[in-house]
Amino acid sequence: MWHETPIDIRYADTDQMGVVHHATYPIYCEIGRTHLMASKGLPYHQLESSGIFLMVVEMTCRYRAPCRYGDHVSVLTRIAELKRKLLSFEYQIIHHQSKAILFTGSTKHLFSQGTRSAIRCPDSYWEILSKIHSS
Amino acid sequence: MWHETPIDIRYADTDQMGVVHHATYPIYCEIGRTHLMASKGLPYHQLESSGIFLMVVEMTCRYRAPCRYGDHVSVLTRIAELKRKLLSFEYQIIHHQSKAILFTGSTKHLFSQGTRSAIRCPDSYWEILSKIHSS
Amino acid sequence: MWHETPIDIRYADTDQMGVVHHATYPIYCEIGRTHLMASKGLPYHQLESSGIFLMVVEMTCRYRAPCRYGDHVSVLTRIAELKRKLLSFEYQIIHHQSKAILFTGSTKHLFSQGTRSAIRCPDSYWEILSKIHSS
Amino acid sequence: MWHETPIDIRYADTDQMGVVHHATYPIYCEIGRTHLMASKGLPYHQLESSGIFLMVVEMTCRYRAPCRYGDHVSVLTRIAELKRKLLSFEYQIIHHQSKAILFTGSTKHLFSQGTRSAIRCPDSYWEILSKIHSS
Repeated sequence: MWHETPIDIRYADTDQMGVVHHATYPIYCEIGRTHLMASKGLPYHQLESSGIFLMVVEMTCRYRAPCRYGDHVSVLTRIAELKRKLLSFEYQIIHHQSKAILFTGSTKHLFSQGTRSAIRCPDSYWEILSKIHSS
Repeated sequence: MWHETPIDIRYADTDQMGVVHHATYPIYCEIGRTHLMASKGLPYHQLESSGIFLMVVEMTCRYRAPCRYGDHVSVLTRIAELKRKLLSFEYQIIHHQSKAILFTGSTKHLFSQGTRSAIRCPDSYWEILSKIHSS
Repeated sequence: MWHETPIDIRYADTDQMGVVHHATYPIYCEIGRTHLMASKGLPYHQLESSGIFLMVVEMTCRYRAPCRYGDHVSVLTRIAELKRKLLSFEYQIIHHQSKAILFTGSTKHLFSQGTRSAIRCPDSYWEILSKIHSS
Repeated sequence: MWHETPIDIRYADTDQMGVVHHATYPIYCEIGRTHLMASKGLPYHQLESSGIFLMVVEMTCRYRAPCRYGDHVSVLTRIAELKRKLLSFEYQIIHHQSKAILFTGSTKHLFSQGTRSAIRCPDSYWEILSKIHSS
């Protein structure tokens, strides 16, 4: 049900607190959902080429323990909710060795053409997303 | 009650959707809260020099309309809740000309020494934060 | 001759070495050149709206002393060379109090329409850039 | 002689020009050199734990063709020069399918303890780096 994507933590992801900066976790989540979609035959760059964007409208983040440079972590991603006009993902970032959950989060997205107008999810994408959701 | 900080939107803040990337807004919020604190005599780098960090433990973001490169926007910040072991901020990002609220968000922070252990807010900082909160 | 732009160093600009990450300086330079151009009536977002982009083709960076969070610094920018098909900028990042030069750098740009084809600088922009260059 | 590291281009690496932002390439180079070193038994986070840092003092970048989100690219890295007080790397970013060289660059580093003082490379690290250099 969860799709796992290993994250290559970049040195530039850290800040002077000595840990991954909190604004980097949304980027790890984005890696998670784009890899989930690509693994099911829906690469995000192809979605965009067809003029469809997934605009983030909401995000929640819970930071339970810091990620550090040198850590081996993965982001787990799944579709939490799929409606014709709304798509929600859930995320967990887990530490490979300790199995600790370092972070949990969620994002909600509207389908849009360009950056302004919300649309209903086109049928071709709806089918793929439904399969991901029910798998 | 709200502290206003103009944001200098950087070109690098945008992504190929043509708008500011959603992971940049937490950075704008961080600018807001550090400027709020600095304006009240508590610069964040001084806090850190004294060994105290404000670790983000929760964040919520609502994206209402995109920020674009070239836009003139400000982040409004206020302390939403102040407890001995927890500090919460609220944010709004507003467009100067249209006065539209583009984004609202919140963060919750623990006081910590280093990145591991949560502590009670030291008295000297408590006083300043209480003043900010009640102003 | 040099245009000065104060930089608001963001906490997220730092890395775990405790200083501004070296890949952030090119972003400071970008702030410098866009502010220089905007100050002369050529805002970069307007350039782009007209379909013209300034693609970076070369960059050099010399890091002389680190920028730190909490430092007050400015980027100084000037046009080093202006040709019909090439535009070069030079940069210095200086510390307000010590007047130390923390960084020097340069960028070379091609004029392009979209991201592929190099073009000659359109006349309207040529005039403004020439004025900046000779001022 | 060149060490190859595949790069996972993040959506956040792009800008509104529709390509990877030019300040992201130094981050790809950093991934290249840290992976090169880790592959030879010298992970960068271990270097730092021992108090040794590799401070960037110079960087050159030549952008030959843009990287795009969805592209499969690698960074090739090698040590160009190794002295007791200076370490230089060279980089190429290549496109997997076209084999085109999209980018070439170089960085020069001083060994330091903390962020201020340059030191001679400690013997234990010198051995490993020498092996990498001559391989």
